Amino acid sequence: MHRVAVRCFHLLIVAFCVLSNSPAAASDPLPSWNDGANKRRIVDFVESVTTRTSKFYVPVSERIATFDNDGTLWSEHPIYFPVQFAIDLTSQLAIKRPELRTRQPFQAALENDLKRLKGINGPDLLTLLSTTHGDMTVREFRVKVSEWLAVARHPRFDRPYTDLVFQPMLELLAYLRANRFKTYIVSGGDIEFMRVWATKIYGIPPEQIIGSRLKARLVKRNGKPAVLRLPEFEFFNNAAGKPISIRKFIGRRPIAAFGNSDGDLQMLQWATAADGKRLALIVRHTDREREWAYDRKAKIGHLDKALDEAIRRKWIVVDMKRDWKVVYPFQSKR
Amino acid sequence: MHRVAVRCFHLLIVAFCVLSNSPAAASDPLPSWNDGANKRRIVDFVESVTTRTSKFYVPVSERIATFDNDGTLWSEHPIYFPVQFAIDLTSQLAIKRPELRTRQPFQAALENDLKRLKGINGPDLLTLLSTTHGDMTVREFRVKVSEWLAVARHPRFDRPYTDLVFQPMLELLAYLRANRFKTYIVSGGDIEFMRVWATKIYGIPPEQIIGSRLKARLVKRNGKPAVLRLPEFEFFNNAAGKPISIRKFIGRRPIAAFGNSDGDLQMLQWATAADGKRLALIVRHTDREREWAYDRKAKIGHLDKALDEAIRRKWIVVDMKRDWKVVYPFQSKR
Repeated sequence: MHRVAVRCFHLLIVAFCVLSNSPAAASDPLPSWNDGANKRRIVDFVESVTTRTSKFYVPVSERIATFDNDGTLWSEHPIYFPVQFAIDLTSQLAIKRPELRTRQPFQAALENDLKRLKGINGPDLLTLLSTTHGDMTVREFRVKVSEWLAVARHPRFDRPYTDLVFQPMLELLAYLRANRFKTYIVSGGDIEFMRVWATKIYGIPPEQIIGSRLKARLVKRNGKPAVLRLPEFEFFNNAAGKPISIRKFIGRRPIAAFGNSDGDLQMLQWATAADGKRLALIVRHTDREREWAYDRKAKIGHLDKALDEAIRRKWIVVDMKRDWKVVYPFQSKR
Repeated sequence: MHRVAVRCFHLLIVAFCVLSNSPAAASDPLPSWNDGANKRRIVDFVESVTTRTSKFYVPVSERIATFDNDGTLWSEHPIYFPVQFAIDLTSQLAIKRPELRTRQPFQAALENDLKRLKGINGPDLLTLLSTTHGDMTVREFRVKVSEWLAVARHPRFDRPYTDLVFQPMLELLAYLRANRFKTYIVSGGDIEFMRVWATKIYGIPPEQIIGSRLKARLVKRNGKPAVLRLPEFEFFNNAAGKPISIRKFIGRRPIAAFGNSDGDLQMLQWATAADGKRLALIVRHTDREREWAYDRKAKIGHLDKALDEAIRRKWIVVDMKRDWKVVYPFQSKR
């Protein structure tokens, strides 16, 4: 386009945004959020960084928001859903590799020993994930994820796992994007696991989904290049790993970050460690009836140090029970 | 915004694009490209994938184009500019670490022994880069890059290195973006080195700049978190590394890829290994007067296998001397 045409186009967009602003502001961008301090603080933040005359105005290119996934955008009990996927893959794998039947953590996975599996961490967790996810091309792995999503049901709700996303968070994602934020997932879950479904469910494109990664190698399949994932971790995208991934993949500091557990603490510290207005938000699981209630003593979604810091630094701590009208889209009355 | 408002907005954009199409099409989007088969093929490709009624139409979200940097977007002789930067850093480093003075490849760097340095590869190259780039936070490293850019001059042209970008490629980047392509850099150069200047020079945001990476660790500096780069490679982003990085960072296959050497071959193979219309383009350095002329025998920008494959598969091979009216912006007659 001509430079003049481009300028006209920009003017047109600006004109349109101004014209459309009043009806948009009049309607509620977060209908599943109860009115109260937390909702007001979210809206205040967004208006403050997007209003041109505000002293906290942030240009569009810098409007980066990063979201944890497990426990922040969807549920994570009784066990992280990506770990449940690995558990379910173990039975398929044990047919080809019977020696796994008597090796931990595979034996626990095959016996569906949730008690043991909930406590799984460190090397055992990495072994379970890398062994079940590796030795496949990305394409083959994605097929496995799709197959699993089509049949797996959450034990409590008897629904596909992707039904257990948080309606208020879907609204928050859409609200930020309507205000020209770029929304990212920065999760401990496997990067390719999420990319299969998260684009459709959350509206976040694959290039904005960052997760844990396996090492990979370029191979030929049917004469064409393919990326083979190796059964070995390259990077576990949790805790201190999150700011490192944000640096590497995004190269800018988020001005808003959303998490729910100690694994998100460093990401929230990172997002708030610069000048200007910043939003840090913790989803606190307080709703035993509609979802789950847990924090400091939980093995899954452990929230302790991040809660202390959130309170001390006056980050937004969402109280699911009090702040959310509905939790899941299927609980919506409409 | 209301759904209705969003829809109106889309209609407005579409209407505007239709209205503005005729003048845009009438003007030349690639004025520094001589008319001829190569220019025509580029324009044909772009029109073919962006015209709604075309059987090769590609939705906006899939319009991904990846560009090598050294030798494709800017020059790379007499030595890769990112390596020249490492050479120049060596003298600073040797003050603190005098033992480097008698160790290779540092000795060659300190003696500016270009003959030896041009042949540098494999472990020696990685050692030079990681030793001079590591042990710094990203912020500290970026300051070093900025300082270097401000004073370093290219030996032949006596100009800042960032003056040696290719005007026809700048136009190509802008042309693709005007057609709603997302343009990426996928280069062997250090990711943080490029992010300092490439956003301003090429109009490519940091999150679309992918390069070689060092390992990193989260540390505290003045009580705030910082990402410390370690003097150790995490990933060398060349050859087979390029498709792996594209998979990891972008998660979609590019429909257009641009390179100039054997280090780009796998990226071009990757981009063209799927159905639909694809563009693969090699910049061939054929202009001894205005730039350089080299291919199969060159140590820097070695182009041999990729040239064979380009000819066999009828990829576009740009002949700099014949296809480009100007090479650098400063050679432009305007």
